[in-house]
Amino acid sequence: MGFRILDPNFERRVRDSFARQAAMALIGATMTRVSPGRCEIELPVREDLTQQHSYVHGGVVGMIGDSAGGYAAFTLMPVDSSVLTVEYKINMLAPAKGERLLAVGSVVKPGRTLSIVRADVYALEDGRETLVAAMQQTLMVMHGMSDERL
Amino acid sequence: MGFRILDPNFERRVRDSFARQAAMALIGATMTRVSPGRCEIELPVREDLTQQHSYVHGGVVGMIGDSAGGYAAFTLMPVDSSVLTVEYKINMLAPAKGERLLAVGSVVKPGRTLSIVRADVYALEDGRETLVAAMQQTLMVMHGMSDERL
Amino acid sequence: MGFRILDPNFERRVRDSFARQAAMALIGATMTRVSPGRCEIELPVREDLTQQHSYVHGGVVGMIGDSAGGYAAFTLMPVDSSVLTVEYKINMLAPAKGERLLAVGSVVKPGRTLSIVRADVYALEDGRETLVAAMQQTLMVMHGMSDERL
Amino acid sequence: MGFRILDPNFERRVRDSFARQAAMALIGATMTRVSPGRCEIELPVREDLTQQHSYVHGGVVGMIGDSAGGYAAFTLMPVDSSVLTVEYKINMLAPAKGERLLAVGSVVKPGRTLSIVRADVYALEDGRETLVAAMQQTLMVMHGMSDERL
Repeated sequence: MGFRILDPNFERRVRDSFARQAAMALIGATMTRVSPGRCEIELPVREDLTQQHSYVHGGVVGMIGDSAGGYAAFTLMPVDSSVLTVEYKINMLAPAKGERLLAVGSVVKPGRTLSIVRADVYALEDGRETLVAAMQQTLMVMHGMSDERL
Repeated sequence: MGFRILDPNFERRVRDSFARQAAMALIGATMTRVSPGRCEIELPVREDLTQQHSYVHGGVVGMIGDSAGGYAAFTLMPVDSSVLTVEYKINMLAPAKGERLLAVGSVVKPGRTLSIVRADVYALEDGRETLVAAMQQTLMVMHGMSDERL
Repeated sequence: MGFRILDPNFERRVRDSFARQAAMALIGATMTRVSPGRCEIELPVREDLTQQHSYVHGGVVGMIGDSAGGYAAFTLMPVDSSVLTVEYKINMLAPAKGERLLAVGSVVKPGRTLSIVRADVYALEDGRETLVAAMQQTLMVMHGMSDERL
Repeated sequence: MGFRILDPNFERRVRDSFARQAAMALIGATMTRVSPGRCEIELPVREDLTQQHSYVHGGVVGMIGDSAGGYAAFTLMPVDSSVLTVEYKINMLAPAKGERLLAVGSVVKPGRTLSIVRADVYALEDGRETLVAAMQQTLMVMHGMSDERL
């Protein structure tokens, strides 16, 4: 994929920003692997995250997909920038159940203003991995706006 | 809009199902108004729902939009049915901040198998209402599967 | 809706740009009504626009929706600008058949960089109007790039 | 990916259906490679397919993406079935220009009722390939409805 890296300290910038997302702490999500153009977020399944059928709520699946995708894009953005979700589309493919969910965001096309990302969310149950959601997302670079100061 | 009502007790069925969504309790969302083809969900803004810029996390905005839209569709479904989100697309239009958010789901086209819904999410701040997200959603009717037994 | 008009000659600019879309001439689409934040495109149904079931091809429905939405956004853009489709999402609601199709684009939120639009496509058959597609779209303003010179 | 094939004559069924899409003939698109869960459609770039900036119209890009995706899904459907586009979402990534476009549809998840597909559209110019659009699509299987008889 040979993405061009604009900030060699992208990983610290990305992890620091994620650490400031209170909503991720509320649901118990953690950022696991981060690499250029790619980001993974894990979520242990909990009862208080479910919808009426005891599966993880589709909106919660969307939350970790949105964060994994947004931070995948943010790895390729310059130092003095911030990232904003313009829009996303998510297909629910299978019930989100098991021990934990894993969202993997991968940049399709980075851009000076807009970046396009795809994210897949997997459910891990009894050692098996099932694709439970597929997302496509548009993100915006906010130049000259450090993520920390916003 | 003259939607055909298949279950006269739709409101109780919808409110009961919402009450079983643990994830809605976690974020503090409540269902306010329900009418045929329409559903509203309110969310008081809390610090633990925010992203890195102190606005409500886009995924949380998606959660209440998804639920408002899904239950708007569910009002028009038959007694022995359940509702499933097939997919949704959401545009973020403005920062989700203020005292509370209001998600309004409205059925565009109900169907025997699939229903199409649009949902809008507003932020209420100092008496002003701002549209913060616009969603379009596809839902599936699961026939012969009471929402309670699933 | 009280949109702010940046170019009083928006209608001529919009109609001139549409006239340069060769693909619209190929399918026989014409621009009918244009007003601030709104644009309508009509398409007489022809056999050579159909898919395998003799309905108008979903992609053709998307074409007129995309153009109606894009030009609805363009009505609110400044003189020296051009409009670009970032992305769109379209739901097919009913078979696109009858005498003609009508696509109506309406701006949801205009913006300095991005504009969000919803477009609906109707089929007109025997005096009846049926909603056949619902679209949500993100458009980008290209500043300092007159649409004519691009 | 080891998809299960329900109709060993899927290729003839798919190519016959495509041949009945008059709209594909109008724009000059041809179906090239077809394999289980995958379908490619090629489109020579022509002046009458362009928008106001002389690039191929985004709606035309959507047309070949929609067809490539739909037929990728159709390869995995049973004999007596037909395929219907429920919805799609497409991001435009780069100007669609060059000698020809190539749309590649790949099934993400086949299903008894709904199938989810991703399609990528490339522009081929001077021997180089550029990704110009990324699509995600939901398709519906119509059982007991041969595509030919519809």
